[in-house]
Amino acid sequence: MELIQNNKCFDGEQRVYQIQSTSLNVASKFSIYLPPQALAGEACSALFYLAGLTCTEETFVIKAHAQRLAAQLGLILIAPDTSPRGEHVAKADHWDLGQGAGFYINASQAPWAEHYQMQSYIADELYALVVSEFPVLKDSIGIFGHSMGGHGALTLAWKYPEKFKSVSAFAPICAPSECPWGEKAFSNYLGADREEWKQHDALQLLKSKGALFKEVLIDQGAADQFYSQLNPEKYQQACIEVGQKLTLRQHAGYDHGYFFIQSFIDDHLQFHAIQLDHQ
Amino acid sequence: MELIQNNKCFDGEQRVYQIQSTSLNVASKFSIYLPPQALAGEACSALFYLAGLTCTEETFVIKAHAQRLAAQLGLILIAPDTSPRGEHVAKADHWDLGQGAGFYINASQAPWAEHYQMQSYIADELYALVVSEFPVLKDSIGIFGHSMGGHGALTLAWKYPEKFKSVSAFAPICAPSECPWGEKAFSNYLGADREEWKQHDALQLLKSKGALFKEVLIDQGAADQFYSQLNPEKYQQACIEVGQKLTLRQHAGYDHGYFFIQSFIDDHLQFHAIQLDHQ
Repeated sequence: MELIQNNKCFDGEQRVYQIQSTSLNVASKFSIYLPPQALAGEACSALFYLAGLTCTEETFVIKAHAQRLAAQLGLILIAPDTSPRGEHVAKADHWDLGQGAGFYINASQAPWAEHYQMQSYIADELYALVVSEFPVLKDSIGIFGHSMGGHGALTLAWKYPEKFKSVSAFAPICAPSECPWGEKAFSNYLGADREEWKQHDALQLLKSKGALFKEVLIDQGAADQFYSQLNPEKYQQACIEVGQKLTLRQHAGYDHGYFFIQSFIDDHLQFHAIQLDHQ
Repeated sequence: MELIQNNKCFDGEQRVYQIQSTSLNVASKFSIYLPPQALAGEACSALFYLAGLTCTEETFVIKAHAQRLAAQLGLILIAPDTSPRGEHVAKADHWDLGQGAGFYINASQAPWAEHYQMQSYIADELYALVVSEFPVLKDSIGIFGHSMGGHGALTLAWKYPEKFKSVSAFAPICAPSECPWGEKAFSNYLGADREEWKQHDALQLLKSKGALFKEVLIDQGAADQFYSQLNPEKYQQACIEVGQKLTLRQHAGYDHGYFFIQSFIDDHLQFHAIQLDHQ
């Protein structure tokens, strides 16, 4: 684990590390914000943030404006990259497939399977590393994300409820099996079998596994230019059917970008702090 | 004035405009944050923010994290580009001269004089445009900036105290005549006459014009990698000599970048709101 950047921020430290990932079979970077409480050695709650298409480990750190309140609440924030990267890593001539578009699943198909193992990377390798190397309160780790990363947060939470104790999302892709972004990614990474896709689709996981969390928070911009890819109403309907408490907020005039996210980031940090405190 | 981007943010709007600047003799972009009060037609205080070397009109908007409190306080925030730009605009093979490095002065020397008229652009053209096109409270406009833009804020405030009623800076270049960045810029843009330089040097303007503001706020990272270029102690000493009240805060461990700025941005907005209210 190599520290490649470290900047003091709100009396904490905003760091970037690079690791040789065994899951991804290539070096990968992640950002971590350590609030002042963590620097003082106090065990802290932690949140994994998964970013959207084209983003990197840097996007959340610069654009989401989360550090101020994380410093107050004593939250560690971890932001991984959105895919494996490198000249030997398969890529596509598309911004929504390949590098920058890992979709937080383990690919089974060539040429993707060799490096695109983002589910194992996040939920096993990086999770274990963070717990062992930083003062993280065990059983007090949440997950959230945006768009493709909102899909990642909702699916990893439902796949690993013993690891992630709280979950929220900004404009998540709620039903990737039913939208162009998700169909493109799943058919490439997982192959043509749509039964297999169900294990990696937030809507289908919710229907098959039922209610797993005390509450889920989703914020959605009503002027989101990608609204048709997201299907929040289907997710809301399924939450009602399975008895999963969901707070879905539709915000008039807000679009898909980080000006939307920064406007509501404090609410998400507060939400996770409350959920994790009540464990 | 062409609106080229508009994103809702904290119930206000973060916009980018492009204008055909007569001062710069080329098209130039600026960002403006309109808080909800301004959108509702209420006249608001306004702050011009001048960014540092290599930055654009986008830097402050993304990295400074000012919108949250600006929305609460009802402050309009204007962030211009840091130089004229374009294929017909003179440039240098240096990151600290030419495009991205206008130094907020009017160049008198070839090849720079044709477009590098940033002082007139900010203090006359853009100032007048903002006052005429947006609900700005006249006599309630402040200025602040970072590094090269801190130099810009301190010098434009001392040159135009009738226009800028409050001033603060992050890690400003306090005495450009006495540091490599400033000597390079001034010798290129203004020529070899060091007497002329004094009219564009914050330290020299303070000494010649004396105390002009009720209070000035400067934040400085004590671990700033460019500390030797900045000379805050000389500025502090001159403030004492001329009777200018200065709050200079040295922050242990903080460097020159935007993680430092975001950590103290709220204090600057509060400072300006108070100064402008007391006009």
